[in-house]
Amino acid sequence: MSASHSAILLISCPDQKGLVSAVTRFIFEQGGNILQLDQHVDAEASAFFMRVEWDLAGFVLEREAIGTAFDLTIARRFGMAWSLHFSDDVPRMALFVSKQSHCLYDILGRVQSGEWKVQIPLMISNHDTLRPVAESFGIPFHVFKITPDNKAEQEAAQIALLKQHKVDLVVLARYMQIVTGALISEFHNRVINIHHSFLPAFAGAKPYHAAYARGVKLIGATSHYVTEELDAGPIIAQDVLAVNHRDSVADLVRKGQDVEKLVLAEAVWSHLNNRVLVYNNKTVVF
Amino acid sequence: MSASHSAILLISCPDQKGLVSAVTRFIFEQGGNILQLDQHVDAEASAFFMRVEWDLAGFVLEREAIGTAFDLTIARRFGMAWSLHFSDDVPRMALFVSKQSHCLYDILGRVQSGEWKVQIPLMISNHDTLRPVAESFGIPFHVFKITPDNKAEQEAAQIALLKQHKVDLVVLARYMQIVTGALISEFHNRVINIHHSFLPAFAGAKPYHAAYARGVKLIGATSHYVTEELDAGPIIAQDVLAVNHRDSVADLVRKGQDVEKLVLAEAVWSHLNNRVLVYNNKTVVF
Amino acid sequence: MSASHSAILLISCPDQKGLVSAVTRFIFEQGGNILQLDQHVDAEASAFFMRVEWDLAGFVLEREAIGTAFDLTIARRFGMAWSLHFSDDVPRMALFVSKQSHCLYDILGRVQSGEWKVQIPLMISNHDTLRPVAESFGIPFHVFKITPDNKAEQEAAQIALLKQHKVDLVVLARYMQIVTGALISEFHNRVINIHHSFLPAFAGAKPYHAAYARGVKLIGATSHYVTEELDAGPIIAQDVLAVNHRDSVADLVRKGQDVEKLVLAEAVWSHLNNRVLVYNNKTVVF
Amino acid sequence: MSASHSAILLISCPDQKGLVSAVTRFIFEQGGNILQLDQHVDAEASAFFMRVEWDLAGFVLEREAIGTAFDLTIARRFGMAWSLHFSDDVPRMALFVSKQSHCLYDILGRVQSGEWKVQIPLMISNHDTLRPVAESFGIPFHVFKITPDNKAEQEAAQIALLKQHKVDLVVLARYMQIVTGALISEFHNRVINIHHSFLPAFAGAKPYHAAYARGVKLIGATSHYVTEELDAGPIIAQDVLAVNHRDSVADLVRKGQDVEKLVLAEAVWSHLNNRVLVYNNKTVVF
Repeated sequence: MSASHSAILLISCPDQKGLVSAVTRFIFEQGGNILQLDQHVDAEASAFFMRVEWDLAGFVLEREAIGTAFDLTIARRFGMAWSLHFSDDVPRMALFVSKQSHCLYDILGRVQSGEWKVQIPLMISNHDTLRPVAESFGIPFHVFKITPDNKAEQEAAQIALLKQHKVDLVVLARYMQIVTGALISEFHNRVINIHHSFLPAFAGAKPYHAAYARGVKLIGATSHYVTEELDAGPIIAQDVLAVNHRDSVADLVRKGQDVEKLVLAEAVWSHLNNRVLVYNNKTVVF
Repeated sequence: MSASHSAILLISCPDQKGLVSAVTRFIFEQGGNILQLDQHVDAEASAFFMRVEWDLAGFVLEREAIGTAFDLTIARRFGMAWSLHFSDDVPRMALFVSKQSHCLYDILGRVQSGEWKVQIPLMISNHDTLRPVAESFGIPFHVFKITPDNKAEQEAAQIALLKQHKVDLVVLARYMQIVTGALISEFHNRVINIHHSFLPAFAGAKPYHAAYARGVKLIGATSHYVTEELDAGPIIAQDVLAVNHRDSVADLVRKGQDVEKLVLAEAVWSHLNNRVLVYNNKTVVF
Repeated sequence: MSASHSAILLISCPDQKGLVSAVTRFIFEQGGNILQLDQHVDAEASAFFMRVEWDLAGFVLEREAIGTAFDLTIARRFGMAWSLHFSDDVPRMALFVSKQSHCLYDILGRVQSGEWKVQIPLMISNHDTLRPVAESFGIPFHVFKITPDNKAEQEAAQIALLKQHKVDLVVLARYMQIVTGALISEFHNRVINIHHSFLPAFAGAKPYHAAYARGVKLIGATSHYVTEELDAGPIIAQDVLAVNHRDSVADLVRKGQDVEKLVLAEAVWSHLNNRVLVYNNKTVVF
Repeated sequence: MSASHSAILLISCPDQKGLVSAVTRFIFEQGGNILQLDQHVDAEASAFFMRVEWDLAGFVLEREAIGTAFDLTIARRFGMAWSLHFSDDVPRMALFVSKQSHCLYDILGRVQSGEWKVQIPLMISNHDTLRPVAESFGIPFHVFKITPDNKAEQEAAQIALLKQHKVDLVVLARYMQIVTGALISEFHNRVINIHHSFLPAFAGAKPYHAAYARGVKLIGATSHYVTEELDAGPIIAQDVLAVNHRDSVADLVRKGQDVEKLVLAEAVWSHLNNRVLVYNNKTVVF
């Protein structure tokens, strides 16, 4: 639970003594009351991760000064990588879709009802199919038809559009195109995909057909940050549901949509709430 | 739920009209009351599967005559493969183990408490480690040390022992050896293994290490009939549980044991109750 | 899985010998190929339930004649209650809502995408809040403000409207009013509600507050047919999700919405596909 | 994950600024490296909870001095309730059983295999039924036949025996007697029970019969600290599994045993690892 105005620090660094003490003392001395603190030590990698959120009411430092003060007094000393966020920031999220609408409706419903505090300045698709949905929610809809010949060019245009709209996060809500390195590196650890299988099982195309052929008793979905290697990025959330011999491929597709939309929503929620840290192609989700 | 004395028919054949009608009429005309009927049509494979269980109270045909009568009047006409079972049969099950005891205790507890009606005439292992457990439950324990050189010979001796004890079902309860074609073909679709991952993800050795390295958010277990191809046999049961960044490999191993033992128990229970049919390297579990 | 044109019979009667045989023989003799058959015997209640679906391709009897023929030749003989449905029927469903939109968006998304084959001729609410959602989906929206004084009168008007639109099924998609006996008896076992707890725990108002106060580690949702006794009707579907000490009441409300919408969707899907039979205030869901 | 030798502090107090800073500074200044830190603020109750575990390697203070030093320098200042534990302590656990063995085998298997580091100096029962199990595991087994007349007296004798064996934790592993206030107050928040329903649904006797009668689609189990009010103590762990119309009461009992044993094991594990704090009849499980 967040206070109406709170600050969030995400920190990672080599593990060493005194880390939590130093960070919490910094917050305390400036008059901050900690609302939530999570830390994790990966003993094998000797790595330290922390998320701390504190109430800004009564905090002495001005928002603009917090980062500099923290960097100078704490972060440099311990060799920390860090980022600072505020709970009342409203991130800007772009949605990429193709023809299927289940993840899209799920996300738009959450935004419209106020469950998620987020701006959606634009949607991007390679098809015109979902334009009416975008329009009924009042969201500008841009179609970029992708062919092998124009892919690089179209993606460059997409990136320009995303930057023009100051997009913070790109969500591939069943976007059936592979995005390439240009977009991925521009939005490093800020492109979230939903894959319709329990990765690493059934990576690539047609996972429900593959699951049916193998006769698995569970199907799943995996939401991950997109990296250059297909379906191999850091996993943020996964879930499964039970199926059986009665389920045809069409049944798997239908049932799987419910897992897909919930898993994607969980991953995006964690990201929007600044709960995710990435290292070694894995995630810490606080 | 079974009556105290019931008969169970498992049937598979090409799909065609009149199958359920013919089978149920046969049972009805002999005075049988159907307790449970399950059927499945795989439209793609044009294959029909059925399990029907009926109360033997008031059934006119004697047990010994049922199979012959069914074969002559129904099965041949439709080209059915079938097997007949009785709920008061007590199957004979051999347990293969190595050093880990969690699946073993789980199974022995179920047998000892009467939850499962099954005889365990023997246990087989490649190590002496679990002999005290076997002895405290009064089960003969046979050690076959396996080396690359003696593997074929030792397995031949195991098969002889299994046949001598009239074993119906072989359960690999975390037996860390690969069993070979001789045993598999002798006990076709009657060797059940538990693999400690959500297959087809992480087949082969050290699946928890692989799951940790990949950073998955769920770990799983898969119980399947053993076939010549490693970890690729027909899946009977699967389940998963949630894990997170806090879990070391040792935690995954510990937590995974609970899924392993429940998934193996579910698969063995289904087999013991004559609920499993195999086709196309998949299972129908009624 | 349904064929494009299939017939479905739902049957219940006292258990007796020959039931499945008689029904399947009827279908076979008219040239029907059974796609799916489920039966259930409640041994304690000595009651028999069956759902059978067959392909109408090649079926000799005309649709209009099936019910009469079945009734005369089979149903009367065995004292069966039965209903006949066709997979290409498109049911007409009314949605009742209040202010919360999560179940509504979920249902509308399923209808719009073609996942559900159903008509929604109207929505009814006691508030104007969700009118824009209805309008963006092109569904007529009727507001009936309810006060203790006008409740009977307003519900009579609602019933008239539902009958005028030939509504088959009423779905209370987080409609925060208690519907009364008049509507319930007019739509017997055709009013589906979603209650935001794992019934019978936390019946009545504010279940998430009650769950928080009790400190449960799971929260749930229950979809049931509405009966005169509040939150006590036959349960069609239930599910839960894990929560912990970190979750405030607001968190429970937010997380619970996902379970609510999926459980309601599962219940409505089962009803729309003619999979639910009711007896003894319980359901058989085939 | 614990280091081989670590210290654990459990703390609760009114929420105020500087708590985490003070505690972590104390650990840091004595040379401790924090392995895991969890804190929770209940904003409504204005209460603070913390669990911190640090490596004792390099820690300057001797074990015996830690508590006093912490109390004098930190705890008194903030009005903290606290307890100090060491990861290499081996708790002493008594098991109370009646006639059912599934939880018992599950626990004994975990202890025997080394999964749990715990001593079981004795078992107590009101029946002789499970004596052979106790004996095969080498655990002294004491029978206290309970009648309405001798209940107080027998429980006094049980308490004496528990104290004589220096028991830290009492686990009611399907002990079908209600324990009374004398034992509960002697072992405050140290008596763990498993109830075979999803509490608060179906408290009291015969929960599976009640679940069957209500027609629920999930059955559950709840592990909680025992308090004077029956089945109303602080919940530590809960889980459920799906059931359907096919399941008789006997099936619910059989299937429920798997949930019972896993939920009880999870609760005991959390307690043994000093992860549970109790307040307002609820638990914080870190």
